[in-house]
Amino acid sequence: MYTLGLDFGTLSGRAVLVDARNGDEIAESVFDYPHAVMDMAMPSGRRLPPDWALQHPQDYLDVFAHTVPAILRESGVDPADVKGIAIDFTASSPMPTTRDGRPLCFLDEFKDEPHAYIKLWKHHAAQRQADQINETAREMGESWLARYGGKISSEWFFSKLLQILQERPDIYARIDRFIEAADWVIWQLTGVETRNTCTAGYKAMVQDGDFPSRAYFKALDPAFENVVDEMVGREFAQLGSKAGELKPAMAEMMGLPAGIAVAVANVDAHVSAPAVKATEPGVMVLVMGTSCCHILSAAELGEVDGMCGVVMGGVIPGLYGYEAGQSGVGDIFAWFVDHGLPPEYHRAAAAAGLNLHEHLEREAARQKVGEHGLIALDWWNGNRSTLVDVDLTGLLLGMNLATRAPDIYRALIEATAFGTREIIEAFEAQGIEVKELVAAGGLPEKNALLRQIYADVTGRTFKLSGSAQAPALGSAMHAAVAAGIYPDIQAAADKMGKLKDEVVTPNRQNQALYDKLYAEYRTLYDYFGRGTNDVMKRLKAIKHEALG
Amino acid sequence: MYTLGLDFGTLSGRAVLVDARNGDEIAESVFDYPHAVMDMAMPSGRRLPPDWALQHPQDYLDVFAHTVPAILRESGVDPADVKGIAIDFTASSPMPTTRDGRPLCFLDEFKDEPHAYIKLWKHHAAQRQADQINETAREMGESWLARYGGKISSEWFFSKLLQILQERPDIYARIDRFIEAADWVIWQLTGVETRNTCTAGYKAMVQDGDFPSRAYFKALDPAFENVVDEMVGREFAQLGSKAGELKPAMAEMMGLPAGIAVAVANVDAHVSAPAVKATEPGVMVLVMGTSCCHILSAAELGEVDGMCGVVMGGVIPGLYGYEAGQSGVGDIFAWFVDHGLPPEYHRAAAAAGLNLHEHLEREAARQKVGEHGLIALDWWNGNRSTLVDVDLTGLLLGMNLATRAPDIYRALIEATAFGTREIIEAFEAQGIEVKELVAAGGLPEKNALLRQIYADVTGRTFKLSGSAQAPALGSAMHAAVAAGIYPDIQAAADKMGKLKDEVVTPNRQNQALYDKLYAEYRTLYDYFGRGTNDVMKRLKAIKHEALG
Repeated sequence: MYTLGLDFGTLSGRAVLVDARNGDEIAESVFDYPHAVMDMAMPSGRRLPPDWALQHPQDYLDVFAHTVPAILRESGVDPADVKGIAIDFTASSPMPTTRDGRPLCFLDEFKDEPHAYIKLWKHHAAQRQADQINETAREMGESWLARYGGKISSEWFFSKLLQILQERPDIYARIDRFIEAADWVIWQLTGVETRNTCTAGYKAMVQDGDFPSRAYFKALDPAFENVVDEMVGREFAQLGSKAGELKPAMAEMMGLPAGIAVAVANVDAHVSAPAVKATEPGVMVLVMGTSCCHILSAAELGEVDGMCGVVMGGVIPGLYGYEAGQSGVGDIFAWFVDHGLPPEYHRAAAAAGLNLHEHLEREAARQKVGEHGLIALDWWNGNRSTLVDVDLTGLLLGMNLATRAPDIYRALIEATAFGTREIIEAFEAQGIEVKELVAAGGLPEKNALLRQIYADVTGRTFKLSGSAQAPALGSAMHAAVAAGIYPDIQAAADKMGKLKDEVVTPNRQNQALYDKLYAEYRTLYDYFGRGTNDVMKRLKAIKHEALG
Repeated sequence: MYTLGLDFGTLSGRAVLVDARNGDEIAESVFDYPHAVMDMAMPSGRRLPPDWALQHPQDYLDVFAHTVPAILRESGVDPADVKGIAIDFTASSPMPTTRDGRPLCFLDEFKDEPHAYIKLWKHHAAQRQADQINETAREMGESWLARYGGKISSEWFFSKLLQILQERPDIYARIDRFIEAADWVIWQLTGVETRNTCTAGYKAMVQDGDFPSRAYFKALDPAFENVVDEMVGREFAQLGSKAGELKPAMAEMMGLPAGIAVAVANVDAHVSAPAVKATEPGVMVLVMGTSCCHILSAAELGEVDGMCGVVMGGVIPGLYGYEAGQSGVGDIFAWFVDHGLPPEYHRAAAAAGLNLHEHLEREAARQKVGEHGLIALDWWNGNRSTLVDVDLTGLLLGMNLATRAPDIYRALIEATAFGTREIIEAFEAQGIEVKELVAAGGLPEKNALLRQIYADVTGRTFKLSGSAQAPALGSAMHAAVAAGIYPDIQAAADKMGKLKDEVVTPNRQNQALYDKLYAEYRTLYDYFGRGTNDVMKRLKAIKHEALG
């Protein structure tokens, strides 16, 4: 008895076939999107303006066509034993379609129109619209704004739709449906249009069961007044519920039985929580890679400083699901290794048969807490939570002539741990408990020093996902619930969720030292991040001026 | 008609034979001190405590014995045409001797006693004594303290002597004379003990013609009450005056005529001023290498924030000579190149046939002002002026994932230029004018970008020494004055001083941008340097604790 989970990332889609009884991963297959991310030019060669990032919806269909047959072949599993399928996706990555779900970019007349394509999560060209959305919400005293840490992102659903309206009203006029790629994929599989509670809540401002008011949308633009009823709809499908049944044409394409359960879509970070058994309040899931996404469930509703969002049922049905994030983690370590590491470390790593990160980790692990004399602010890529400010930049302090690369490497890891502690404290300040940390992603799995530092800095036990593919596993678990194999996601998590045996506990002596260093981090955090000294923003403005 | 200038550095002595008519450098020779710097162990193998740094006086005599004959041989100059000799030295590098000038370390009973040797300028083990000297001066309201920026260094004359008294009163009791190595060398050449105004003023608290009072010395230690009269003396020899005539034995050793003029000793940085024609008020001389020493003359006496010292006749007779400094300049660039530069830059430099500094300079020179978005505090080695604080450390701010090595290299150069501007502004705040900058040393000579940045940041023209050996040339000029070839150092500078033709003028557009960036530097300088946030000191304390 198997289910399929498909995880749609930024550059590829990954399918994993999972044994629904115990969560064993039987086979997997990855397919790179042929169009990848279109951020410089359209397929025709037409140049895109700065900050655009598009995708091509055909690529997602190709993922199904390539990966699922490959997995069935490889595993030898009888397709009749596959009972359900579910997907998770980047978000918000929305697209305009016709009434029957045909992407506008599939129509000949629009195939060279950027606005007819999927605006990928990292499309940042709708900042003006996001600013307007925020300003109008503040002016009108919209209560939902606080549920998003006080700020809506340019990456989100309505920022991107408003950009189309304002820049190309002619294309806007031709949109019948505006839908997350996640939900669009499910529509293609089932023929049923659904809107999952996760993207609706985190990316489209749905709170307490509905969107902002018509009056609010009208204030953004008179033509936007009825946007929800015209293009979106007000029905939301709960995570783990069945969106519909697999259509014969899609079943045939994949080599699966028609009619099996297809679950409601989900988001990659959020779907990881049940995969690491984090279905109860108090367990913070860190989905760590280039950046870090923090997912936490609680019975209480709190307005947490600088969180990305809180959504009832956004992670686990019946609980408030909280999301926060750090915009640079693995990215910062990679930057340092790529651009700050002198040849002797390359030579030493090669001689030891280690990669650069492993070598630096080993060197840095020899140090005592505080020995390097450094402190950093982990803002190379801005600060998502708790400051929600993309214009902040990195800081490194304490260097002397004896400072060496492993010192800096360690200080950078510590800075990201301080950033996570800052987020934890923001939650606890609102009475939302964080009892332990569970991490998913390659970064924490590879780096034992990082695990210990996070435990020591936060004073919390640190566990690791038992699966290297937590999102796909999480999707397969939702498929199992949708297929009726389990009554709910908690039951599925109990049987299919996976944690490694290792439990990293805080070293009390290190914790006491890190309390001192964290106090320094906090002071710098507030000084540079909360307006006392806006030097980072002024330097950025001078830089933009210099670059014309 | 020739004179000889000898420059005694930290690791070697350099002699230059100069044509006294025009300053042409005819020949030079360098001799490395056989004992170099003794900072780990004595010649016997006896270990030294941390922060000690000693030298062996025989090494200086060996410099004369090796370099001068070599120069005479190489140049073919008739020794009879050599009319005078002068030296400059590191300071304060004092030593204990017998009444006839025999170093205590030459006596068998003391040859394994560290306190019997020269305490080199960078001997830092007398900090406790320096603290006591400062505290007592503040308590007693000593007016001379303000002439040293409010703080006496552990590197200075009486800190080192008080260390002997407190740690080894038995050796202290055997000292007849305590004397700068600079003056001791002249004593050896001439048989006459002199004390030059430069070291007396800058390193031994001589102000307005005398040392601090007996009451002050008594307050430091009852046994110290008559230290000046017992071991030092109260006569000061003006720079450029004749200390005496070359003794026959020394003349024979060097192959020079006996009886030629030997000038009063001088200090390496200060003696460079006339070598670059900086004999008038308003010309700031930057002696740039690993660190930077700022020398400036003025008719007025001012108490400048954080200067190293002001001494009447300390640089040019009849003018107040000011000294300030930055404790890390070339050191910081070297640190970055040695410890922060990834292999691709090593490869690119090699491919272009450039050294790493040249390659980075070329890359960084392509940028517009402000383009890298960075700002740094140049405190890798602490801050000498204007904060006089060795416990400050470096800072780099503004990094993002696109930051590359040339960005940081440029930001570090700019930070040192901002540091010099801070010093200039401290002088001008006291009404001491700084009209233009003249630099000596390999660093500014090699780096055209640095010259332009210093001009743009300070808004002042930037000129370069015409000699690569400015201290030795300056000494040869003082020898020419002592020999009566010129009536004073101004006249000697007029004929023998040398400037390169290049005059770097500020680019007005860059200057305006640097005004903005300097304002940011100032804010950070005050915030981290003047006690608002002492994070650097706290990190250092944590570090020392971690290292046990």
